[in-house]
Amino acid sequence: MFQPVYFDHNATTPLDPAVRKAMLPWLGKRFGNASSRNEYGRMARAAIDAARQQVAAAVGAHPTELIFVSGGSEANNLLMKGVVACRRPGLLVVSAIEHPSVLRPAEQLAKQGWLLHKLAVDTCGIIDADDFAESLLDMPELVSIMLANNETGVIQEIETLATTAKAANACFHTDAVQALGRLPLDFRALNAAGVRAMTISSHKIYGPQGAAALVVDKRVELQPLIAGGGQERDLRSGTENVAAIVGFGVACELAAQRLNEAPQRLRVLRDRLEAGLLAMGAQIFAQSAKRLPNTSFFAFPEIDGETLVGKLDRAGFAVASGSACSSVHPGPSHVLLAMQVAPEVALGAVRVSLGVANTLDQVECFLAALQEISVSLKRMTAVTI
Amino acid sequence: MFQPVYFDHNATTPLDPAVRKAMLPWLGKRFGNASSRNEYGRMARAAIDAARQQVAAAVGAHPTELIFVSGGSEANNLLMKGVVACRRPGLLVVSAIEHPSVLRPAEQLAKQGWLLHKLAVDTCGIIDADDFAESLLDMPELVSIMLANNETGVIQEIETLATTAKAANACFHTDAVQALGRLPLDFRALNAAGVRAMTISSHKIYGPQGAAALVVDKRVELQPLIAGGGQERDLRSGTENVAAIVGFGVACELAAQRLNEAPQRLRVLRDRLEAGLLAMGAQIFAQSAKRLPNTSFFAFPEIDGETLVGKLDRAGFAVASGSACSSVHPGPSHVLLAMQVAPEVALGAVRVSLGVANTLDQVECFLAALQEISVSLKRMTAVTI
Repeated sequence: MFQPVYFDHNATTPLDPAVRKAMLPWLGKRFGNASSRNEYGRMARAAIDAARQQVAAAVGAHPTELIFVSGGSEANNLLMKGVVACRRPGLLVVSAIEHPSVLRPAEQLAKQGWLLHKLAVDTCGIIDADDFAESLLDMPELVSIMLANNETGVIQEIETLATTAKAANACFHTDAVQALGRLPLDFRALNAAGVRAMTISSHKIYGPQGAAALVVDKRVELQPLIAGGGQERDLRSGTENVAAIVGFGVACELAAQRLNEAPQRLRVLRDRLEAGLLAMGAQIFAQSAKRLPNTSFFAFPEIDGETLVGKLDRAGFAVASGSACSSVHPGPSHVLLAMQVAPEVALGAVRVSLGVANTLDQVECFLAALQEISVSLKRMTAVTI
Repeated sequence: MFQPVYFDHNATTPLDPAVRKAMLPWLGKRFGNASSRNEYGRMARAAIDAARQQVAAAVGAHPTELIFVSGGSEANNLLMKGVVACRRPGLLVVSAIEHPSVLRPAEQLAKQGWLLHKLAVDTCGIIDADDFAESLLDMPELVSIMLANNETGVIQEIETLATTAKAANACFHTDAVQALGRLPLDFRALNAAGVRAMTISSHKIYGPQGAAALVVDKRVELQPLIAGGGQERDLRSGTENVAAIVGFGVACELAAQRLNEAPQRLRVLRDRLEAGLLAMGAQIFAQSAKRLPNTSFFAFPEIDGETLVGKLDRAGFAVASGSACSSVHPGPSHVLLAMQVAPEVALGAVRVSLGVANTLDQVECFLAALQEISVSLKRMTAVTI
């Protein structure tokens, strides 16, 4: 089987072998419904309880603060729609660079009578502090600002922002899907600063697709998005995906262990990558901002991003042209447009997101391939003109 | 490992070995995000497309009529909340014996200005035709009636009900989670009769937890429950759980193949079981109704259901005291109460739901164990009195 070098870890990650091993019994003889009151059900329930402990420990939360859901998009929708369902329509504040699973529900709510304000960011992708302060004067009911951006890797000062928002008494949520496993995450500290809810997901940290959690301060009033049998303290009904939750638990434990070492190692690879990119004349987005150590988002003048991704794919390197999550809607990245990148430049954007199995050798090979491809593409552009 | 006899297939089923085998590569080297435009992403997308064909073929639907979601509860919530979001508040009609994932969203909507009518059933658990006809005079916007009940196994005449409802122009939905794999399901025929949407789920048919589908006539206007990156025709965003969807596809194919043989075989076991139960003095709920071939719901006078389930569990038989899906909310079954079963009798209810690996020998052993337990429990009751 052809196995290209994988540089698309912000889209999804391979299963860690230890995670896979932990999951397999739950895809075998241990197949119970966690709500069943028999031996199979009790084993499933105990496994979910253990995973809840593992996930909570990895992010400094209490196990009872977790709501297991099927994915980060569900967690974001649950928080936003679940909070506003308990409040009278008012102001909703999200940043312009949020993941579509925050932006789209916000837009749905805007059609239902909520006022929506999208916070501006500067050219480095950092929330505009003045815009934020001003929006707080209008006493928003809900604020959602992501911890780290999936495209650029830019990290926001969430504790500072949440502290500022405290006086407004808004429910402050942060989408931490890209931060988990790449930065230390401490919900207790975030909560003390004013963060009321946080989204994390399994498949970005070498866990399986199909599991995620909304970590939520229990004082937050919430309506379930999926109502039914009453699982997850009646906030997320439906038979639990035991194998996926077990995998999520182990993945969280491993992610916490890896934090001492992996980010630093990936930063070295990323820095080497970016030195090479700059030498080839690439523009690196948000280069000077505080960013995730594994993410590089860049463009070459006059080279189309989609074309470059296709050429790299055929050369054996799996990268992204923008956010995989929204690649069903092509077009320039909304994150880059919010950073005032010109649309024609934004259309050139390519994302490399590194993972724990990547090596310096792979980065060197990638740069060599990119050099060749970019030269030939520039030549083609020259001929076309 | 202690492996009790599993008689709880309406709660969840073990993975078929062929399903497991099909899933494993997607928990290994094929780990892409189906929205990524690289080799990994394309492989994942192709696998989802193939599964969509398999699922659609098994239920007589067109692949484009499927929306993959994380479970049956999500599908039911998506349909109900998604349809009413496109309509002005009016009348909502559901049966009194629906799964909680239909009843609870209906009750949420009732708090938001919708009128809710719960259809009565007769003592056999069959929808009261007069009540239904009367409710149609008020022109409901949405009707949801399950195809087969998870507790009693009672099958409704869905085509007849949908045909009756056609004139009212309501959106007619049926939760077919328990019917899939146990009865022939043909969405084309149901759709012709007036059924506009149908819920099916993977983990009830020897597929994995974490995958299900809403099969929906494309003329039905629907708002997404989970909005975001735009997956599933913008009706269900979120990174697809590729392994689970692949497993669901194979499970559907196997379920369709098995329909010629398995239901008849299970009916023989179930009939032997019920003959034994009746001989011991049990009451079998909805005994004379058209039921799923694998399901038996019964009670012994003066024996508590929970107690009996616990004793059977220790004797090595995994059964259910009611609906596993709602066992977080104990109490007499709402299905039995709707059938006018006295609460004290309903509290005795025990469900046996058979699966393809069960044998006549297991049924005989179960009856022997039950005989012993019921005698000792009756003696205890006698002593207590």
